[in-house]
Amino acid sequence: MPMIPLYLASRSPRRKDLLSQASIRFQVHVPAEPELAAPKNRRKEQPGQIVRRISDAKAEACAAELRASGCTEALILAADTLVFLKEKVLSKPADETEACLMLKRLSGNWHTVATGVTVLAMNGKKSTKKSIHVTTRVKFFPLAKDWIHWYVKTGEPMDKAGAYGAQGYGAALVEKFAGSYTNVVGLPLGETLSLLEKISGHSRSAFQEHK
Amino acid sequence: MPMIPLYLASRSPRRKDLLSQASIRFQVHVPAEPELAAPKNRRKEQPGQIVRRISDAKAEACAAELRASGCTEALILAADTLVFLKEKVLSKPADETEACLMLKRLSGNWHTVATGVTVLAMNGKKSTKKSIHVTTRVKFFPLAKDWIHWYVKTGEPMDKAGAYGAQGYGAALVEKFAGSYTNVVGLPLGETLSLLEKISGHSRSAFQEHK
Repeated sequence: MPMIPLYLASRSPRRKDLLSQASIRFQVHVPAEPELAAPKNRRKEQPGQIVRRISDAKAEACAAELRASGCTEALILAADTLVFLKEKVLSKPADETEACLMLKRLSGNWHTVATGVTVLAMNGKKSTKKSIHVTTRVKFFPLAKDWIHWYVKTGEPMDKAGAYGAQGYGAALVEKFAGSYTNVVGLPLGETLSLLEKISGHSRSAFQEHK
Repeated sequence: MPMIPLYLASRSPRRKDLLSQASIRFQVHVPAEPELAAPKNRRKEQPGQIVRRISDAKAEACAAELRASGCTEALILAADTLVFLKEKVLSKPADETEACLMLKRLSGNWHTVATGVTVLAMNGKKSTKKSIHVTTRVKFFPLAKDWIHWYVKTGEPMDKAGAYGAQGYGAALVEKFAGSYTNVVGLPLGETLSLLEKISGHSRSAFQEHK
């Protein structure tokens, strides 16, 4: 049993699934504040810096809400994933037309997926925060027009950065990964567990159901 | 609608799931003949050649059974996945002790996963067969003893080549992929769909439920 409850500050079903895959016990607390929009990409800010800045902000927002509700001890896990094509952010598509356009741009090319992960430990009035980022390079198969059309019609692209999900119907779109797979799904799992261990001072087994 | 029924010559739940992820319609026909054991690794036979030889044999065995039952038109999909560490095959572990040993050897190291895929088209007395192989390099995190112990206790390693499943509890063991992810799960999805298209002369949409 962990000494401190773990809160996931994300509504993403993919992140919930990944934590469950590692048998981690957690509660969800999504801060009421809206997710920060992806900022205009500043020249000097790298993908990793952008996603860490956003995951930090999500963790802080969650901590503020938990404190306001009287909670004094908690571990908070926040994450943010963005897709970068030639240094431009591809966010969630606004409609099917934009999803088709994004997929056409990804077709046959390499792109980068970056996830920022922040763990914040609240302990009375003190808090400790640490964040990491993981980047993965992803190469798409060249996609035929009717294949893009089929994929968009599944509805899967609509709530996903870059207009695809590597773990669903989108699995057939990807030719190669260079780096972490779970990072592309939304949470680099091994790195996240190590970060939890480091901040909490507990081994990962303290957070697991299945022992 | 495909003109010809598609048979998957494999009992692997992972392969069924992957085909379903691409919305492919298929039936399962596992040839009664036992799977060929992984042969002693011959000096001159590469991982890709070994898995193709085995997937070819599975497809042929399936075709023979379907012909014997009076079927004259079918597409058959067979596959075989093996894990190679320094040119040695890691097959399914015999027991928990062997699973622990395999995971210790994989810990912190790169290994290779190779899948052979064969598509065989039966058309009256004629048949056409084509096979491919895909290899992926996989790097494990350094695994602490209690983490290996926990993972083996989940039971997941027992029916899997190399004693792990990348898509289950094992997701947290893998640091990096270099190449296809679905190949490591058991069927390189995009390559398999292309092979089906090539042999059948139909676009992949002819095999899909979701249109």
